[in-house]
Amino acid sequence: MKFGVMGTGAVGKALASKLATLGHDVMVGTREPDNESARAWIASSGCDLRLGSFADAAAFGQTLISCTAGITSIDVLRSCSNRDLAGKVLIDVSNPLDLSRGLHSPTLTICNDDSLGETIQRQFPELRVVKALNTCNNQVMVDPGRVPGDHDLFIAGNDAAAKEQVCDLLRSFGWRSVLDLGDITAARGTEGLMLIWLRLLARYGNADFNYKIVRAGQEARS
Amino acid sequence: MKFGVMGTGAVGKALASKLATLGHDVMVGTREPDNESARAWIASSGCDLRLGSFADAAAFGQTLISCTAGITSIDVLRSCSNRDLAGKVLIDVSNPLDLSRGLHSPTLTICNDDSLGETIQRQFPELRVVKALNTCNNQVMVDPGRVPGDHDLFIAGNDAAAKEQVCDLLRSFGWRSVLDLGDITAARGTEGLMLIWLRLLARYGNADFNYKIVRAGQEARS
Repeated sequence: MKFGVMGTGAVGKALASKLATLGHDVMVGTREPDNESARAWIASSGCDLRLGSFADAAAFGQTLISCTAGITSIDVLRSCSNRDLAGKVLIDVSNPLDLSRGLHSPTLTICNDDSLGETIQRQFPELRVVKALNTCNNQVMVDPGRVPGDHDLFIAGNDAAAKEQVCDLLRSFGWRSVLDLGDITAARGTEGLMLIWLRLLARYGNADFNYKIVRAGQEARS
Repeated sequence: MKFGVMGTGAVGKALASKLATLGHDVMVGTREPDNESARAWIASSGCDLRLGSFADAAAFGQTLISCTAGITSIDVLRSCSNRDLAGKVLIDVSNPLDLSRGLHSPTLTICNDDSLGETIQRQFPELRVVKALNTCNNQVMVDPGRVPGDHDLFIAGNDAAAKEQVCDLLRSFGWRSVLDLGDITAARGTEGLMLIWLRLLARYGNADFNYKIVRAGQEARS
């Protein structure tokens, strides 16, 4: 499948490389497609990746992945043609995180009675937004086996077929347990996890961890 | 030890009964100590519990537990004498939850750059506040074995000795894994879990679940 990956940060790089490794056609969208560091990364990635503007990547991808910084996600999508967004699944991986007061005092720019996932869905109703992969580190996203045993990924979205498609993709990444939390308003809960995730990161000193929901009646899996 | 348990809701009842069962002396604080339903519950509880005003319970307890509705916690503590709070450990179990828009649209009255735990600590600096037990159902709180296998409880607070004392109490409840997330500002993360907890409740249809942080290097425990 053809993917448009918005963003050349650590998350965009990890996802674009993983998708290419799995045989997908990937264009990475960036603010300045001519910038040296993005071109150097593409050249050194060992993957067959294309680089373009955000609008180019939106036009290229059959499925889009939003992994720019959360505070810029809306502006990035506004720079794309509505025609290139219409009907497409957009996986929203970003969190509306404000770290201006330091890692120890993270805040969210949208939270509680709203979320970034909902905001994107509301402002771009032609997209089929699925919130996913925003609750773990980028290395775990594309290689869940870095965290041993059973652990969960949360997804949310209004479109059942879009969620099913995203689940298939996640399974191809190695995810064995994907918990569908319902409509896109559930992104309030998963984006809100950032506040505890950063505390756990501080406690453990590395990002190789993830959540598992343990419950009665659950069968042990090897 | 003598405990003052603030609140006669499901959480207060569960904690007061558990403490009495473990041999502690417990006074349950309520707004109207003469109200029939609280007296009837005490009589039918099978536990040796005292009932009093919030101020009575604060005076009685060597350790206090706040489990009134989060939106009233501050007013309840204001109704107590500062002299009866000074130097005491207060375990803050409540969440600043507003369900006025329904279970599906929960919001927090304090969140993101503040929390109820911090607000209590700030407004009552004479207390040694430990945020704990606010991330699971009241039945799981006092009987963690309802959820099989390993799972975690999160605590936060500024006073290391107070947290150690609370950890000992939690171990006596049956908790095997208590994760200290640091100072009381970490309550932003644990109170924020309410937003995903209610979605998980909706998904599973019961509250017998809890979080486990899975990570590399962790040893399997039976």
